[in-house]
Amino acid sequence: MRAASNVPFCQSEETAASIAHQNQESKEEHAAYLFTEQIEGLPNYVEKEEEEGARGPSAANEPATKHKTKPVTKAPEDEHPHKTFGYGNLSPFHFSRRFSPSRSLYENGDDDVAIKILYCRVCHTDLHAIKNEWGVTRYPVVPGSCEYCSQDKESYCPKLIFTYDSIYHDGTKNYGGYSDMIVVDQYFVVRFPDSLPSDAGAPLLCAGITVYSPMKYYGMTEPGKYLGVVGLGGVGHAAVKCGKAFGLKITVISTSPSKEAEAIGKLGADSFLVSSDPAKMKASFGTMDYIIDTVSAFHAIAPLLTLLKPNGKLVTLGLPAKPLELHSHLLVLGRKLVGGSDIGGMKETQEMLYFCAKHNITADVDG
Amino acid sequence: MRAASNVPFCQSEETAASIAHQNQESKEEHAAYLFTEQIEGLPNYVEKEEEEGARGPSAANEPATKHKTKPVTKAPEDEHPHKTFGYGNLSPFHFSRRFSPSRSLYENGDDDVAIKILYCRVCHTDLHAIKNEWGVTRYPVVPGSCEYCSQDKESYCPKLIFTYDSIYHDGTKNYGGYSDMIVVDQYFVVRFPDSLPSDAGAPLLCAGITVYSPMKYYGMTEPGKYLGVVGLGGVGHAAVKCGKAFGLKITVISTSPSKEAEAIGKLGADSFLVSSDPAKMKASFGTMDYIIDTVSAFHAIAPLLTLLKPNGKLVTLGLPAKPLELHSHLLVLGRKLVGGSDIGGMKETQEMLYFCAKHNITADVDG
Repeated sequence: MRAASNVPFCQSEETAASIAHQNQESKEEHAAYLFTEQIEGLPNYVEKEEEEGARGPSAANEPATKHKTKPVTKAPEDEHPHKTFGYGNLSPFHFSRRFSPSRSLYENGDDDVAIKILYCRVCHTDLHAIKNEWGVTRYPVVPGSCEYCSQDKESYCPKLIFTYDSIYHDGTKNYGGYSDMIVVDQYFVVRFPDSLPSDAGAPLLCAGITVYSPMKYYGMTEPGKYLGVVGLGGVGHAAVKCGKAFGLKITVISTSPSKEAEAIGKLGADSFLVSSDPAKMKASFGTMDYIIDTVSAFHAIAPLLTLLKPNGKLVTLGLPAKPLELHSHLLVLGRKLVGGSDIGGMKETQEMLYFCAKHNITADVDG
Repeated sequence: MRAASNVPFCQSEETAASIAHQNQESKEEHAAYLFTEQIEGLPNYVEKEEEEGARGPSAANEPATKHKTKPVTKAPEDEHPHKTFGYGNLSPFHFSRRFSPSRSLYENGDDDVAIKILYCRVCHTDLHAIKNEWGVTRYPVVPGSCEYCSQDKESYCPKLIFTYDSIYHDGTKNYGGYSDMIVVDQYFVVRFPDSLPSDAGAPLLCAGITVYSPMKYYGMTEPGKYLGVVGLGGVGHAAVKCGKAFGLKITVISTSPSKEAEAIGKLGADSFLVSSDPAKMKASFGTMDYIIDTVSAFHAIAPLLTLLKPNGKLVTLGLPAKPLELHSHLLVLGRKLVGGSDIGGMKETQEMLYFCAKHNITADVDG
């Protein structure tokens, strides 16, 4: 069992250091828009779900109210037996590790595995969390879902407990992998192939499974088909590498012409397309079977949909705070689809690791 | 071989009579927005494609310029051998029928079938066309795609010639089924089961295949699964009936509480959900496997996406002039998809007719 790198492997140009200084109040306003006002004509389902379910998970047959955050009676460093050091909001932070979030309500620790953390990748999700862009961060927060990005066989389970900034069954808050150790139920531990290096292999547990899962689920693995990868951050890198391993023809689509050398020369993409160049975009109209869109900021997807052949599929992995514009005719007239995908489950994560080991896929990490 | 009904079978409350009096100029402005300004940061692909391809189809190896509308040298009624009477812009209109749009460039008429039109359904596409809501109508126009809604095995082929308001290979314009006869290549003729009535069966060739095709393509046919049908117009009716035949549990979702009796009592839907009632919508959160959204006007799809279970699928069939708002987190966090679908191909249309005959599915038509 080995772990992941704490050097950036994400698509943002922002550095971790700059994040902690964001104005929290304005971010909260921003995020409130996402989770409430955008869902026109509806009660605030998402917020409600967070209160009762996803963020305060309840076991079967237990009333939801039981699982709300319990009143703080101890400091984080005294709350649990395992003294832990981490980076809360990317500032040093001392807290303690409890027994793992067990699958059973009455956890006894028998399934717990205490793991020393050597590496932890930085993911754009962490940046969203630190900046409270989704309006649900409970400060202090220690990001870093590390090799435990997926904490349930069904990662879409509404009772999912996330790796960090979630509430355990006993009401205490959890902290992530930007720290020196973590306690995990053995069910949520994967076997890390010996041939994968710890540092360059660990990010696969986030970026790798994030692209591998939708490629499998949406049937985007047919050799010889054309895949466009939008954005060449950490997830984009993984998409190019997995796509090549599946035998796809890869076009990296980016606003930055400067990334062409990296895309083709270093990653082995077959072509490069500057999305801000109308003539080049036009020349690629209707040429792609699949697109993986990794962009986490608001952007236009209509130009991307025009790149797809009939029956083409665009999978969006980012979580922009503003809704995207969806032109129905671009879907209807070509029977195209826009699908979302979150992280994969435990079984698929294990499968992905073996796939990456077989195809010598690792992440590009800075020393 | 029999044909279709000319009584309304569409989701709009508007009557055909009211349509011809719309202000064309304002509609053109409206439509220009759809096809140009909405595709941010891009050249006008759609318009370009229409000029060169979809609306002025070219045969392989032929320059696109060859297929532009040829100069008018004869009146429509003298242009071709078959004298025809129809409803141009829903006003009486005399024109002539040429040989059918052949699959080969050098058509000789050997494959032509001349068909007397007894019934022709009214479809929302016709309303869009008459009102020039998509900005591409070439007046005069005779709508009515009748039993020939699908004019190619691959209805998503970019060289598709539509049933009306398209340009033939020889540069003449075609007119649809709101008329007394039509000439069609035998390849595009389907066998109409004897057990289906002409009038109530004909709309299946539009509304029926429009729902049958996506249900098959997107895998929305598993017995016992929950299907939401948004909008109870012609397409919605067909979705309920086909869904029941596949063994699905159907919820009709509508803004009109008055449609409950029809949905459940007449069509046999299992439940009814008023989309404007927040409490009822909330109670249905996360309960549906599939949604077929037939609404042709701008509307919020976020509330619909919240109705879906994880891995749920929403298929949109309408073509609103304004882009819909797509909240990425509603797709990503539940691995949901929004897919489009147009009409089906010839083979699937034939399959649908046999399916409907077997399950006694016909359209509800007014006498």
